[in-house]
Amino acid sequence: MSFNTFGKLFRFTTWGESHGPAIGCIIDGCPPNIDIKEEDIQIELNKRKPGQSKFTTQRKEDDKVQILSGVFKGRTTGTPISLIIYNKDMRSRDYETIKNKFRPGHADFTYFKKYGIRDHRGGGRSSARETAARVAAGAIAKKVLEKKIGKKFRVIGAVTQLGILGCDLNKWNDSTIRKNPFFCPDKSIVKLWEKYLLSIRKSGSSCGAIIEVRARGIPAGLGAPIYSKLDMDIASAMMSINAVKGVNIGSGMNSAQLTGEQNSDEISQKGKKLIFKSNNAGGILGGISSGQEIVISFAVKPTSSILKSRKTIDKFGKNTTISVKGRHDPCVGIRAVPVGEAMLNCVLLDHYLMHKAQCS
Amino acid sequence: MSFNTFGKLFRFTTWGESHGPAIGCIIDGCPPNIDIKEEDIQIELNKRKPGQSKFTTQRKEDDKVQILSGVFKGRTTGTPISLIIYNKDMRSRDYETIKNKFRPGHADFTYFKKYGIRDHRGGGRSSARETAARVAAGAIAKKVLEKKIGKKFRVIGAVTQLGILGCDLNKWNDSTIRKNPFFCPDKSIVKLWEKYLLSIRKSGSSCGAIIEVRARGIPAGLGAPIYSKLDMDIASAMMSINAVKGVNIGSGMNSAQLTGEQNSDEISQKGKKLIFKSNNAGGILGGISSGQEIVISFAVKPTSSILKSRKTIDKFGKNTTISVKGRHDPCVGIRAVPVGEAMLNCVLLDHYLMHKAQCS
Amino acid sequence: MSFNTFGKLFRFTTWGESHGPAIGCIIDGCPPNIDIKEEDIQIELNKRKPGQSKFTTQRKEDDKVQILSGVFKGRTTGTPISLIIYNKDMRSRDYETIKNKFRPGHADFTYFKKYGIRDHRGGGRSSARETAARVAAGAIAKKVLEKKIGKKFRVIGAVTQLGILGCDLNKWNDSTIRKNPFFCPDKSIVKLWEKYLLSIRKSGSSCGAIIEVRARGIPAGLGAPIYSKLDMDIASAMMSINAVKGVNIGSGMNSAQLTGEQNSDEISQKGKKLIFKSNNAGGILGGISSGQEIVISFAVKPTSSILKSRKTIDKFGKNTTISVKGRHDPCVGIRAVPVGEAMLNCVLLDHYLMHKAQCS
Amino acid sequence: MSFNTFGKLFRFTTWGESHGPAIGCIIDGCPPNIDIKEEDIQIELNKRKPGQSKFTTQRKEDDKVQILSGVFKGRTTGTPISLIIYNKDMRSRDYETIKNKFRPGHADFTYFKKYGIRDHRGGGRSSARETAARVAAGAIAKKVLEKKIGKKFRVIGAVTQLGILGCDLNKWNDSTIRKNPFFCPDKSIVKLWEKYLLSIRKSGSSCGAIIEVRARGIPAGLGAPIYSKLDMDIASAMMSINAVKGVNIGSGMNSAQLTGEQNSDEISQKGKKLIFKSNNAGGILGGISSGQEIVISFAVKPTSSILKSRKTIDKFGKNTTISVKGRHDPCVGIRAVPVGEAMLNCVLLDHYLMHKAQCS
Repeated sequence: MSFNTFGKLFRFTTWGESHGPAIGCIIDGCPPNIDIKEEDIQIELNKRKPGQSKFTTQRKEDDKVQILSGVFKGRTTGTPISLIIYNKDMRSRDYETIKNKFRPGHADFTYFKKYGIRDHRGGGRSSARETAARVAAGAIAKKVLEKKIGKKFRVIGAVTQLGILGCDLNKWNDSTIRKNPFFCPDKSIVKLWEKYLLSIRKSGSSCGAIIEVRARGIPAGLGAPIYSKLDMDIASAMMSINAVKGVNIGSGMNSAQLTGEQNSDEISQKGKKLIFKSNNAGGILGGISSGQEIVISFAVKPTSSILKSRKTIDKFGKNTTISVKGRHDPCVGIRAVPVGEAMLNCVLLDHYLMHKAQCS
Repeated sequence: MSFNTFGKLFRFTTWGESHGPAIGCIIDGCPPNIDIKEEDIQIELNKRKPGQSKFTTQRKEDDKVQILSGVFKGRTTGTPISLIIYNKDMRSRDYETIKNKFRPGHADFTYFKKYGIRDHRGGGRSSARETAARVAAGAIAKKVLEKKIGKKFRVIGAVTQLGILGCDLNKWNDSTIRKNPFFCPDKSIVKLWEKYLLSIRKSGSSCGAIIEVRARGIPAGLGAPIYSKLDMDIASAMMSINAVKGVNIGSGMNSAQLTGEQNSDEISQKGKKLIFKSNNAGGILGGISSGQEIVISFAVKPTSSILKSRKTIDKFGKNTTISVKGRHDPCVGIRAVPVGEAMLNCVLLDHYLMHKAQCS
Repeated sequence: MSFNTFGKLFRFTTWGESHGPAIGCIIDGCPPNIDIKEEDIQIELNKRKPGQSKFTTQRKEDDKVQILSGVFKGRTTGTPISLIIYNKDMRSRDYETIKNKFRPGHADFTYFKKYGIRDHRGGGRSSARETAARVAAGAIAKKVLEKKIGKKFRVIGAVTQLGILGCDLNKWNDSTIRKNPFFCPDKSIVKLWEKYLLSIRKSGSSCGAIIEVRARGIPAGLGAPIYSKLDMDIASAMMSINAVKGVNIGSGMNSAQLTGEQNSDEISQKGKKLIFKSNNAGGILGGISSGQEIVISFAVKPTSSILKSRKTIDKFGKNTTISVKGRHDPCVGIRAVPVGEAMLNCVLLDHYLMHKAQCS
Repeated sequence: MSFNTFGKLFRFTTWGESHGPAIGCIIDGCPPNIDIKEEDIQIELNKRKPGQSKFTTQRKEDDKVQILSGVFKGRTTGTPISLIIYNKDMRSRDYETIKNKFRPGHADFTYFKKYGIRDHRGGGRSSARETAARVAAGAIAKKVLEKKIGKKFRVIGAVTQLGILGCDLNKWNDSTIRKNPFFCPDKSIVKLWEKYLLSIRKSGSSCGAIIEVRARGIPAGLGAPIYSKLDMDIASAMMSINAVKGVNIGSGMNSAQLTGEQNSDEISQKGKKLIFKSNNAGGILGGISSGQEIVISFAVKPTSSILKSRKTIDKFGKNTTISVKGRHDPCVGIRAVPVGEAMLNCVLLDHYLMHKAQCS
């Protein structure tokens, strides 16, 4: 049971609401003697923080993280690491006018039905602001994996589809990703995406996105069948991100259309090197990593807070309409990239530790 | 930690290998005083059992289940329910010739890398035979939900795409599903699927499938954010099924292409009735059920055991080829339908109990 | 897996070190719509806080708690409750001279062996300062139970043995307990305890204690056999408290000396009232509450930090001696009373929720 | 959540009732490549099985165990190990006359209050027959630890007090323990115990016992503070055994009476050897093993099924009396020795794996 905890051996528990005094997390099960500085975490948080371009929300949060425990003289001690990020730029008044209405597509209605009470300010607990805490946890997972697995290890994500516009995956370039405001891996499409998203924004609408995350340097053998399969935990991790509605491993949904010989990745040995001819499996077979690159993708639905007027009801059951003003991402999928990376780092470390426990 | 356990409050733990003496499961956390007979479980097992048509494997297993504990005079006692199904029709000799080879697309390679040992007979633990145990657990979950939620509750699944052939979802008919060997909900396409799958089989190949599962009569409020979201647990459940590579909730991967106004399901009240204009959310908002029909789908990759010759290596690292003879499903996706239903029943009951614990 | 988390459905995760900037906890799974004010928590913390009499450590901490999340307009929302207590009166310099030595009876040696690193200041994570966070969590559990079970519910603890001096349990008086600095329930012995503990303190030594905690108004039926027995979880809870070495349920260790007819509590019905002739079971049979008063006790070993010189080694393996100066409780058992109460409140609420989930 | 599961990384789930067709367990998380034969498990089961002397119940069960999964060609595969033991010698008719009465001291009343239904035959799920499944799990844990830690590892338990009669712990002799029907470690007291227990039996009564279990060869560093302390998990394990009412670690309850200098075990180094002057801590400091012998003890209350007539009520609330005929142990504590050993083996392996995961 873990409503607000993710993970098995490397576990993080997040807390906080969009307009509360602060948000944060506790990381438990982190190996000792890992070098961790606040800057290591800040680098990752900065990728996700709002207000960095005209394509994201204009809420200004510097998302400055503080380490409150678990690190002594710059190294982890094996005890719980408590991280806190104070909220700064809340405009709770923006939400006064809609506090009794349920925004369609948001969790307003369901939280109210479940709990009979909800913090309406900025979505409260259901706000994507919570994901900052995950990114912080992921930064620590990343540091541990870099030490344990070594330099060949890398997790990197990108937006591969923005609304109706895809990109050319063959042009994927790691260094391109950080050089544009969309985390787009294909330089040739960036301009088009820019125009498209500006027009979406101007029209008071929003769009969805597909994010792909890849993990390199992962040894074969991670994953614990049957009910702790690596792909199962990845699906779980990604689906837990706000607004995610679909998850693929490797060829994903598309694998339904393949034949057996198209799909199964042939194996051969060339000297000491094992070669898979293709990677439909996304690096995972029977729930266990094969040593191939792990490739996963997920879809983020369009931001539900839009200027366009929508029909809804209020909490008294009366029909009404809503138009959500204020500061919102025209495509929440963009800022989901560092979140997807963080979650994959956490899942991989979790399985790394599990594997070490049982099989080393 | 739960390598072979699924669930939080309603939990089942499965055990057994394809060619071991038996398979089974223990169900823990089942409410007391529920009427359970072996026949209730058998009905569900019969949907999944092999050898029922020319479109599934010819292995003959009657999959007869026995209740060993937890049920007294036909009613559950609240103590663990142990179920056992003896294996009958194993032909372990079929696997002798390939025991040192890794079948591409299967878990042979990864199990060996992880554990340094594997039961090669019929895939051992990684065989889809394990799913019989889940179907048994799901049968019990279904009985509990029927008693607790009442008659309006129903979970039903279907194959909505067979390889490259889809079907018309507008023609979905519950009663059609059980009347064809594909669990196809659209009567008009059945003949075509039949021809298609026979040709796939004859060519020694296989194909994938998409399965859609729907749950009706689910009250609003089930699901526990952030890390026990209902959709997260559903994704996890479906991805745990053998050969599943993608999971969608509602519009799923397709939601990336929608605009905000297309995607967010408008809400209105008509008398006492709450109406959602559409169901892109698949009945889940912020990880909590909205009271709409829950609609999920998942892709099953094509059977990896095919007659066509494939390149691979053996466990000594030597290049070789493999052609898998014996008895295999040309489309394993078909028999995944009752498995998907069972998993959804289990997740829903689990969340029903969690909700009762915290919010009643 | 839960290194720093306690509980199943009502869960708290603590963090923080004795000399870090703060300590705190996250409470997850709390039911919504419970009235919680910081003062409710403060009342319980004040029972435990140091520096209140000459019989406890002179470290001055006001242990002022802040609620950072999960409470909206004075009521719980069902989302995680984050509590923080800043540390104020650390004198880390006191620990400089002994930072390389292992204090006998403390966790210095074992933490170092386990993690290869430790925060030596005030015992770091192993300090009893962590128990403030539990007391805070227990305060919330208490509020929930008072609302759910009603006024008859009460958990109350006392010191029933101070070093070699016992007290007369027949003279147990609830109101006496809060009126003396020992949480002693027997007014007639207080003066003697006072003299005894002063002499212990003057001699630079310390003494152990036995704490008894009673829970009234608990309905029959709480507890979930086999491996979530109520007594099992209570034993676990109490043994997790710093310096606890033994736990009894009802007659406890003494039950070994009883005969069957002495031990088994006879049952009779008088009108509508069920009467147990005795309470050797401590209110728990087969791991489930019987409706009798729940009575448990535990032993706290004497404070290991004493002025008297003791032989030990340093972290380089050299023989040395140690005399621990600074501010210490002559009997840490005293301040364990509110901690024991808090833990029992948490276990009871946890089982209350579990019972509701499975059996209501 | 784990009503019928014990452990975190090495987990076992038990099932079955006293008079059901069988009992058994599933072991999950066992490392691969461990040699396991049914005989290895049988040896341990034989220590616990009934009907071996006139001092235990006369129910005849050979407790023959079968391995149904998880072991391939004599070695564990890392997948779940399912064990089954068929019940043979049930005399359910013996329980017909008392099926509506609640036996005082037993779980009859509380199970009925909790679940509203109970299997009355032989205590159903609450019967100590369940402990056979634990002993089987413990046998596997032992094999793993012997391989991982090596020859110096040994867990051994004994009865150190039988009713009102203690024994001389200074005369503890491992080889004596298996040579008398009481698992008594002190040869000089055996005759007296024999006379005493025969007289107890003849009088139609029963007596309690204290069991001590010791673990040798355990490296320093096992245990995970704060809420997975080694002693906490041991207390939990022992308290889960039927009829256990108290648990001590090292000096246990007695440590309350010690002074700081008496209690804290002084440390010194002699060459390469670390020496603790005493072992009041029972080998555990701050929840982590110190490398000393782990010493724990627990009290088992007297058998509640006695011939002597006792007052009770029936399930209709009517006053009545009960005298339990049939086959019962005059001291259930005796057969708790192998159960305590098994549980300690399981806890130690669990922590061994946890330590390897986080700290290796």
